[in-house]
Amino acid sequence: MSSSEPFDFQIDHIIEIIRKVQPEIIGLQFPEGFKRRGPAIASEISEATGVEIIISANPCYGACDLDIPILENVDLLFHFGHAQLDDNRYSDKVIFIETRSDADVKDVVLKGLEELQGKKVGLLTTVQHVHKLPEVREILEANGKVVAIGRGDSKIAYAGQVLGCNFSVADDLDCEEFLYIGSGGFHPLGVSLATGKRVLIADPFSKDVREVDPSLIMRQRSAAIAKSLDAESFGIIVSSKPGQYRMELARELKKLAEEKGKTAYILILDLITPDQMLQFKVDAFVSTACPRLAVDEVGRFSAPMLTPQEFEIVLGKREWEDMVFDEIRGD
Amino acid sequence: MSSSEPFDFQIDHIIEIIRKVQPEIIGLQFPEGFKRRGPAIASEISEATGVEIIISANPCYGACDLDIPILENVDLLFHFGHAQLDDNRYSDKVIFIETRSDADVKDVVLKGLEELQGKKVGLLTTVQHVHKLPEVREILEANGKVVAIGRGDSKIAYAGQVLGCNFSVADDLDCEEFLYIGSGGFHPLGVSLATGKRVLIADPFSKDVREVDPSLIMRQRSAAIAKSLDAESFGIIVSSKPGQYRMELARELKKLAEEKGKTAYILILDLITPDQMLQFKVDAFVSTACPRLAVDEVGRFSAPMLTPQEFEIVLGKREWEDMVFDEIRGD
Repeated sequence: MSSSEPFDFQIDHIIEIIRKVQPEIIGLQFPEGFKRRGPAIASEISEATGVEIIISANPCYGACDLDIPILENVDLLFHFGHAQLDDNRYSDKVIFIETRSDADVKDVVLKGLEELQGKKVGLLTTVQHVHKLPEVREILEANGKVVAIGRGDSKIAYAGQVLGCNFSVADDLDCEEFLYIGSGGFHPLGVSLATGKRVLIADPFSKDVREVDPSLIMRQRSAAIAKSLDAESFGIIVSSKPGQYRMELARELKKLAEEKGKTAYILILDLITPDQMLQFKVDAFVSTACPRLAVDEVGRFSAPMLTPQEFEIVLGKREWEDMVFDEIRGD
Repeated sequence: MSSSEPFDFQIDHIIEIIRKVQPEIIGLQFPEGFKRRGPAIASEISEATGVEIIISANPCYGACDLDIPILENVDLLFHFGHAQLDDNRYSDKVIFIETRSDADVKDVVLKGLEELQGKKVGLLTTVQHVHKLPEVREILEANGKVVAIGRGDSKIAYAGQVLGCNFSVADDLDCEEFLYIGSGGFHPLGVSLATGKRVLIADPFSKDVREVDPSLIMRQRSAAIAKSLDAESFGIIVSSKPGQYRMELARELKKLAEEKGKTAYILILDLITPDQMLQFKVDAFVSTACPRLAVDEVGRFSAPMLTPQEFEIVLGKREWEDMVFDEIRGD
């Protein structure tokens, strides 16, 4: 890892594996934020080993986006940027390169310390910083805090790791507030909604500390629910991506809708985009796919896009005050 | 088929099949132009039979876009708007509903007759009008023409039928010019380029007759080639869609590029869009996927998008005057 490179793509490790396993063809899959690096990384690996390389160009936002069709073309697939989910079906061919960051956390944690209000702190982070949690714990404990780190369910590779669709490490954790080490705002927001507790973000890149404020998102979600109250027809969306596929849930929601006298259609597709959903004239959509879809793309679809929990509120099966972010939980 | 409905979705036939086969769950897949009809057709079939229905929402532009993942969820899939390709792997589960049109052809063929210049006419059409070819032949023969209809290769279900990627029915046909029965301009353009012969379009919907003029497209294609002459790095795109998958061709093109001292990366994905390809910084793309991509989306990609034949021109392996549309041929 060079000093100018905040993420470790483990090129030497990959070259070592290739020399040992001697695959004829390998695949490389990158999440969107790393895709631009793909060609240069491919050239580096190819020059060092002579292996033939195919790059997956499909959109990729998580380990749930694992490129299955490419596996028919390659002997090994290196999937960058995510930890393995609990789906082991493809593990003989797929190697997860977690692209850890060596960004220093000390300064921002000390800054966060000043903002923490309670004694018991729950720690959260993404896979990029998960190896820094022992250091964070040490700093906090040296300053009189009691630190809790949740194990999470079967989808979670590392204690304290949150996914955009899984906040299980926060479940029943004995803490008054959370400290999240990372840059994005979505994960800590989800934990804030899931637990009702205060969440502080400590960003190791910008060195900023800020408190999660769920009020804007809650207003947007409430508006989506309110706009759907008179809806008569619903498109219930299922993704065929292995890590997002929830057909049983879609069936239950369709049945629930029909019991309430509504019309519902199950729509299955790989990649859900506002353009593609334009083709379907329904009063509202319900996404059982990536839980971030409804939140991140709010207002971009031709009809309100609800999460399953919000759909339950629309149908009167759940109270407004029990609104939470959707999650895809493991065992 | 109601009189206001120009296409036959064969709902009664589908209901009959469902009553006979008794599937628990069926899938419906529509090309983009018919997708809006999906929910109403689903309701009609569901009310008549009680069968559970899942609608494929993936983009669909041809029989090559057959939704494979949905097959794991359904007992039968009805795929609308296209004839079956020569790929029989899924034929135990997939029924192709060709959505024939009953649009009258007589008037527009008589109008076209006035514009035909030679004695020997080759007939072309899409699956929507293919059942009208005997009538077209009769009209032309009654007016002194000699009519030829090509059989085409293994990808072609019906004599005289052209696909957007297969003009094999025009191969070596004993005729001086072609008459194309249909609305779109792409298929007759491809035949014009492939054969160098005059192609007349007779549109049964608008009742217009017009002659194909390949000059604008040829200028656009020449510009794409010219812009790529200095390119050093190429992204060679392969689609994982079964009907568009040409990995071997991509490998050959990559090898050819490397022999000429260029850098080339093989990029594989399902759906190729200008947005998605933005992630890859190369000087030019080469698409081995749907041949229409380079032509229909010209100028929308971040770098010139070439067909395999155009890439050969760029590399000096093919003469400019041998420029043809790319095709995906059968046996």
